Amino acid sequence: MITPIIDPASKIPVYTQIYKYIKKEIETGHLTFHDKLPSTRTLSAHLQVSRNTIDMAYGQLIDEGYIEARPKRGFFVCDISSNLMSIPASIPEQPQPQASTITYDYEFSPYGVDLENFPYGTWRKTMRDILYDDRNTALFEAGPRQGDMDFRQAIADYLHQSRGVSCTPEQIIVGAGVDYLLLLLSQILGRKTIFAMENPSYMKAWRILTHLDFQVVPVALDKYGMDINTLRESPANVAYITPSHHFPMGIVMPIKRRQEILAWACESDDRFIIEDDYDSEFRYKGRPIPSLQGIDTHQKVIYLGTFSKAIAPSMRISYLVLPPALLKIYRQEYSFYSNTVPRTEQKQMTEFIRQGHFQRHLNRMRNIYKSKRDYILKVLEPYSPQIQISGENSGLHLLIRFKDGRSEEELLAQAEKNRLHLFGISQYMTQMPVPKHLTSTIILGYASLTFRQLQQGMEHFIQCYF
Amino acid sequence: MITPIIDPASKIPVYTQIYKYIKKEIETGHLTFHDKLPSTRTLSAHLQVSRNTIDMAYGQLIDEGYIEARPKRGFFVCDISSNLMSIPASIPEQPQPQASTITYDYEFSPYGVDLENFPYGTWRKTMRDILYDDRNTALFEAGPRQGDMDFRQAIADYLHQSRGVSCTPEQIIVGAGVDYLLLLLSQILGRKTIFAMENPSYMKAWRILTHLDFQVVPVALDKYGMDINTLRESPANVAYITPSHHFPMGIVMPIKRRQEILAWACESDDRFIIEDDYDSEFRYKGRPIPSLQGIDTHQKVIYLGTFSKAIAPSMRISYLVLPPALLKIYRQEYSFYSNTVPRTEQKQMTEFIRQGHFQRHLNRMRNIYKSKRDYILKVLEPYSPQIQISGENSGLHLLIRFKDGRSEEELLAQAEKNRLHLFGISQYMTQMPVPKHLTSTIILGYASLTFRQLQQGMEHFIQCYF
Repeated sequence: MITPIIDPASKIPVYTQIYKYIKKEIETGHLTFHDKLPSTRTLSAHLQVSRNTIDMAYGQLIDEGYIEARPKRGFFVCDISSNLMSIPASIPEQPQPQASTITYDYEFSPYGVDLENFPYGTWRKTMRDILYDDRNTALFEAGPRQGDMDFRQAIADYLHQSRGVSCTPEQIIVGAGVDYLLLLLSQILGRKTIFAMENPSYMKAWRILTHLDFQVVPVALDKYGMDINTLRESPANVAYITPSHHFPMGIVMPIKRRQEILAWACESDDRFIIEDDYDSEFRYKGRPIPSLQGIDTHQKVIYLGTFSKAIAPSMRISYLVLPPALLKIYRQEYSFYSNTVPRTEQKQMTEFIRQGHFQRHLNRMRNIYKSKRDYILKVLEPYSPQIQISGENSGLHLLIRFKDGRSEEELLAQAEKNRLHLFGISQYMTQMPVPKHLTSTIILGYASLTFRQLQQGMEHFIQCYF
Repeated sequence: MITPIIDPASKIPVYTQIYKYIKKEIETGHLTFHDKLPSTRTLSAHLQVSRNTIDMAYGQLIDEGYIEARPKRGFFVCDISSNLMSIPASIPEQPQPQASTITYDYEFSPYGVDLENFPYGTWRKTMRDILYDDRNTALFEAGPRQGDMDFRQAIADYLHQSRGVSCTPEQIIVGAGVDYLLLLLSQILGRKTIFAMENPSYMKAWRILTHLDFQVVPVALDKYGMDINTLRESPANVAYITPSHHFPMGIVMPIKRRQEILAWACESDDRFIIEDDYDSEFRYKGRPIPSLQGIDTHQKVIYLGTFSKAIAPSMRISYLVLPPALLKIYRQEYSFYSNTVPRTEQKQMTEFIRQGHFQRHLNRMRNIYKSKRDYILKVLEPYSPQIQISGENSGLHLLIRFKDGRSEEELLAQAEKNRLHLFGISQYMTQMPVPKHLTSTIILGYASLTFRQLQQGMEHFIQCYF
């Protein structure tokens, strides 16, 4: 007979105690295949518990496959024999913690943004208003796959006004970051796609595409951006470029090169241009450079934008503007993918744009970033014979080339010794070696440092290098 | 000489007016390649504006590539000729709106959840506290790629307590929905992977994997879940299963079949099991069925979970628990992907779990869903000779098979005529035809209907079918 020790005072229900006892008896082999269990009536009498309790214990054992009920014959132990049972459980291997990184005193990263001046108050208030509006409970339902329509309308309006992008909200797909959107876009473009990427370039995109087993052809830069002749000679049918502010070189692609690349794209139906407009909001000299998409009269440009730079890196909202030919493929083949951005965040960003906070924030940040950039240029001014600065008119970083023959490696080693985190051009090369005119070049990002940190950091920078 | 009409009262800065005028002159061919522009001194005198204004206008034109400065010679118009210029802009094609769907009075969808009883107050308060805590500004910085550590710890604790999952937070990857995590997982598993999926199954996963050009083998179900012999005979090395509550059949895989599938996986290093545990929180009879991962002593199970069912579909948070062998590949090859979940949402969910709200919410919803399920079973009770109900003990839907010979097509047509949205089994088949024992079967999801809607909906259901 089955005789578990039942503790009626336990927090574990009695039926669970019985179920666990029998399960263990089976697992340890005390009860084996074909053994008959007592009837529920017998066991309930034996254990002095209700029949219902036994029913529940047996029911759980049946559901998990330990026992089965044979009609009119009673309950029998199932065959759970398996060589797995005799093998002792291996202790889960504790994965190694990620490699510890050096801590720096001054983080001149080209990826950071200024979070000191983030409008937390307005941001909070916007979210609070959304969550407090009880009409918004629909925001908890699954939303449209491409993103909420009013959010896409707000993006389309913003892109039109600020970037000269010409699109309807129907062409926009909202997604949780550029990485995800590239995963999606690569599927829409199809496996036969061959990408051309500038060298140097945004290595994350390079890594994503090569890890997806796409052929990616590195194309050299001249002073106008992606070299058109190399592009023409390559087998590539999709060119990935950053025309408004080349990453990391800071080149603004002039109108002629833009037209040449558009003309290249127009020569074949399967050719497209990916315009990654990652930080075009921040330009410090003259008017903003209009997007390539805006001058494309042949629907050849795929526009890729993000709020990571303009708002915060933790803000996982980016967007893709698809030309009609690709939108059709998306709708037919890939629109089954659920949206990846929470609807509350979509609504928050919509309100932030609609109420004018976004434009005000951009204008404010442009001034703040410009002051930081101006400060760096002023500090470096006395050393101008020894260095060459470029890419300083837009974005959140600039390039410094040393003319004294010190190698990039030496420069970075000196920085590290002084606990300055700087970046070398070679980590952005899609193809080595670093071309001669880019040797001895370091990248200095200034967005995430406060003014105080920047002052101290630049002091250390000067001491380190001059 | 260049003579734009300058409006000093305009909101458009004077330099912009000049820049725009010259740009237009170049684009329309009034100024052509090699034309020399007046010097800044001459033009400033001519237009009675400062030289700085002309500098800025010319600077913008240089940056955009319309003109160039030739040292010691002055400013010249660039070659922007391109056949593109002469082609009139094509009007963007307005994409077709998505096919209009029939509106139903009663939505018996297996995908919905109950949002009437969502704890909006607590949810709001949790987010408000997070946003108001100014120490949390770090939440706006880019976070760890796998997700925040305290969030992963909270998930690991929850999974251990509620699902018997045995893992460290290091094994967890947080992502914006199961779709995204499958995109990532498929890369970690590698292109040679051949998947086995149950038939019928969760079609979204099927679509994702087949659209990524993976070979996916449909494997028939028997009453215990995925048929082990068919799996053994197939070339598949990764089995995608829903053992706790088969989607859509509702089968609970018994311990023996679990062990058989684990034994299959143990036979080769490249074999793995994906356990999609999509709605295991809701079980109405007996104790929860422990996860397959929890009894896997050989690190062969990839566990996939989501908060979409337990919280809300708009909540784009899912998670992947990787066994050590795959975690190693992820760390070496794919950890460059940025995280896809906003850190504020990660923090919100962490607090929701930590403060006990999540468990309370689950317990409450389990009772509510159980009442809805019980109501349906009670209403259908008088018709039990004509139908066969299955999958009713877990999850948010049940299956009804009609014994009177009406086909699935007829059943769905009748439902549509009565404005009831029901689902047929055939749309979940990875391979047709529908096996004989599954013909005439419809799926009835009951989560998203309020009690009142459910009462009325079931009344219509009875009138429609009996």
